[in-house]
Amino acid sequence: MKRSQRLVSLTNFFIENPRVHRNLPYFAEKYNAAKASMSEDLDIIDNMFQLEGIGYLKRVAGSAGGVMFIPESSDDNGISFINDLCKNLEDPARILPGGYLYMSDLLGEPKTIRDIGRIFASRFSNLDIDVVVTVATKGIPLAYAVASFLNVPVVIVRRDPKVTEGSSVSINYVSGSSRKIQTMVLPKRSLKEGSNVCIVDDFMKAGGTINGIVSLLGEFNANVKAIGVLAEADDEEEERVVEDYLSLVKISDVDIKEKQIQVIPGNFVKYF
Amino acid sequence: MKRSQRLVSLTNFFIENPRVHRNLPYFAEKYNAAKASMSEDLDIIDNMFQLEGIGYLKRVAGSAGGVMFIPESSDDNGISFINDLCKNLEDPARILPGGYLYMSDLLGEPKTIRDIGRIFASRFSNLDIDVVVTVATKGIPLAYAVASFLNVPVVIVRRDPKVTEGSSVSINYVSGSSRKIQTMVLPKRSLKEGSNVCIVDDFMKAGGTINGIVSLLGEFNANVKAIGVLAEADDEEEERVVEDYLSLVKISDVDIKEKQIQVIPGNFVKYF
Repeated sequence: MKRSQRLVSLTNFFIENPRVHRNLPYFAEKYNAAKASMSEDLDIIDNMFQLEGIGYLKRVAGSAGGVMFIPESSDDNGISFINDLCKNLEDPARILPGGYLYMSDLLGEPKTIRDIGRIFASRFSNLDIDVVVTVATKGIPLAYAVASFLNVPVVIVRRDPKVTEGSSVSINYVSGSSRKIQTMVLPKRSLKEGSNVCIVDDFMKAGGTINGIVSLLGEFNANVKAIGVLAEADDEEEERVVEDYLSLVKISDVDIKEKQIQVIPGNFVKYF
Repeated sequence: MKRSQRLVSLTNFFIENPRVHRNLPYFAEKYNAAKASMSEDLDIIDNMFQLEGIGYLKRVAGSAGGVMFIPESSDDNGISFINDLCKNLEDPARILPGGYLYMSDLLGEPKTIRDIGRIFASRFSNLDIDVVVTVATKGIPLAYAVASFLNVPVVIVRRDPKVTEGSSVSINYVSGSSRKIQTMVLPKRSLKEGSNVCIVDDFMKAGGTINGIVSLLGEFNANVKAIGVLAEADDEEEERVVEDYLSLVKISDVDIKEKQIQVIPGNFVKYF
């Protein structure tokens, strides 16, 4: 096979299989090419991935060595995505009764979801995450996007137990915004004891829901390594119960009367 | 930029942007290359994509012409994936009380979900789908996977209205398995009148839920072009209320006493 063909095949392999380790002989045999040629192919791909700001190839030398693709969003790509998101969310047509913001259209775009996933995954890249945890319903696509770049499974916390998931662990918690007692459930066999997890959700106000997930994960002795939310909103009546989190955008002000919304970059941008 | 670099960049562009149309001058300018060279690049990529069984580049000649990537799963890839899935699902440890099957682990793997999405998207490729519709919760990741390959948005039907989605249309329907009256809700602004939709879900027994979605979509004058479910199960007590659907696998027998499950390829394989 020619180099030009190998480059297409390899690029596809890396993008579809992030964080999957392969050694050089594997590729050399697959493409019937010399190891030196394979090594040059990998250099070309690594350089281009970095130039495009989508990640890099992690190479390990030696007999147990090999290569894997680590997807990462460059700071430039991340900042420009977040700025666009802020502008998009400031559209007054998004204001709903009660001062809520309509975001379902954005959360329905697979491409947008994938971009958000890549940005979070970049930041969580070195945390040895075993599982991405989210709560039904709106956080689900975001969680899968993050998980796909980290090459780990997703576990979904539910508000109601389902017969198709077997025995479960449940907790009660107090919702921050409604101050109602709510329930959260996680099937017993869905999470191994002592897993490293990151929590991903679409929206956080006081943080009652996230706090509930953290408590539930405590029952599984999980280590919460990171918390990522797409949007956070100030809750003037309620003190925030979650301190250590990353948000891409912050809804700082919704003026229903004047039909104006102010959306600014979240605390995530501090890390660029 | 050298051809080798262009091939990496182009391959990444096509995989990340399925069904996005670009004309040749766009690429020629981006890479500062002659149109003839670009055309050769596209030939190389098209050949490799077909060889790998992941789709093809659709070229349109003439002044309005250009190129887009149509992702498709080759029949070979599809059949081998479905056979592996059947074997995996026949693990007796999956049997839950009541004869249900535990599938949450599979549905939690982003890679598996993406493969399923690619297979369905191949079949729906020529149906001019505008939107993928699913119902919360388990169908959501599958719906996003299908939508990402079709480059269309996802709309999620809920069982309960949410304040963050504005005014909604709701219907009541009779669930096939529990014979209970249930509610389904779709926010008014989530779906344009007359859209072409495909419905994607994880599981179908008698089909009451799918039927409910179809009724709800009727309120939006949507055209249901296709229905895809990951797994179907025989319901001996209930006649099937949905006729025209595609299933990847069929759970044909669950013997709780003998701890045996039989899973066979679904009606999807007829189209290979």
